[in-house]
Amino acid sequence: MEIKSVKKLTDYKHLNLFSINYQDRENCGKKWIFSSRSKYLNPLEKKHTNPDAVVIVPLHVQEKKLVLIKEFRVCLGGYQFGFPAGLVDRGETVTQAGKRELYEETGLSVTKVLKKSPAVFSSSGMTDESVSLLFVQCRGKPTNRFNETSEDIQTIMLSRENAEDLLSDTNTKFDVKSWIILNTFASCVVI
Amino acid sequence: MEIKSVKKLTDYKHLNLFSINYQDRENCGKKWIFSSRSKYLNPLEKKHTNPDAVVIVPLHVQEKKLVLIKEFRVCLGGYQFGFPAGLVDRGETVTQAGKRELYEETGLSVTKVLKKSPAVFSSSGMTDESVSLLFVQCRGKPTNRFNETSEDIQTIMLSRENAEDLLSDTNTKFDVKSWIILNTFASCVVI
Repeated sequence: MEIKSVKKLTDYKHLNLFSINYQDRENCGKKWIFSSRSKYLNPLEKKHTNPDAVVIVPLHVQEKKLVLIKEFRVCLGGYQFGFPAGLVDRGETVTQAGKRELYEETGLSVTKVLKKSPAVFSSSGMTDESVSLLFVQCRGKPTNRFNETSEDIQTIMLSRENAEDLLSDTNTKFDVKSWIILNTFASCVVI
Repeated sequence: MEIKSVKKLTDYKHLNLFSINYQDRENCGKKWIFSSRSKYLNPLEKKHTNPDAVVIVPLHVQEKKLVLIKEFRVCLGGYQFGFPAGLVDRGETVTQAGKRELYEETGLSVTKVLKKSPAVFSSSGMTDESVSLLFVQCRGKPTNRFNETSEDIQTIMLSRENAEDLLSDTNTKFDVKSWIILNTFASCVVI
């Protein structure tokens, strides 16, 4: 497999389509279209060490609860359960962005970072988007008063029993990361 | 928050950009661009019960190993570790698609389906793509002879110790789902 050329197909601010010409294993010319947040004309030149976004997995120590958010997702036209998350701003570290986003979206404060993933990929069949998962302990009382006007967020604090109930509700939409971690959490496994 | 209108911005075969006009919490007009595999002019009309794709989490019972694939990902310009996966074809169930994709990508056969997630979302800040996770037991000997010519796949069978080693390799690219599950697997937790 060999990449031959990359072309930017659209010119929007936050998200664009790109086309890659490549040779397959039998040297046939093929084309692959993907979406990217990249600011470069060729996203393949980007180093993959810095993630586009941070996803915070917050454990509220005092309450012994896992923190999720129920958020209006424009492109789903409805509410989805997931973890607090956001883009890493220029000049910010993943940890700084994680602390900021958790506070803005839930009002909670990070007390300890437990684990930080490398930049891992959301769905590399269709996008080069990468995120870093930041597992943290946090404290405080949830509030949505630091939300932006384009955000509609409710903080959800889940015990293991609540997690099980939520997972069994067939009308609920989940982000894939929260579904996996919620399952582990509900199975009484230490995260 | 209220969706006002949806517009298809591009006209490619497998992936397109769409624009949504919506009103934020203070009734200001805003715009959100996202990518979608949807064949509809308005992806918001799509029911979210059927996922776009299936992601198989295979446990090789005889070998007591978790199965991953190391796959060339065109839009990353390199290899990534992840789970076998693929689009659910028209008329196929998620389980049928999962069995087919596992066989095509690894040569392994499903012996038992352990768990199937609902359609959960890959990264709903930028796409409405949804996947169903299919946790299965499998058997057989890995081979890549059923790969398509545009696929470059190596099957990786991991013990808990191997999983730990792989996670500590800083040069490895991971899909986010495999990174989370690999961590759980490495921590000696039953999946």
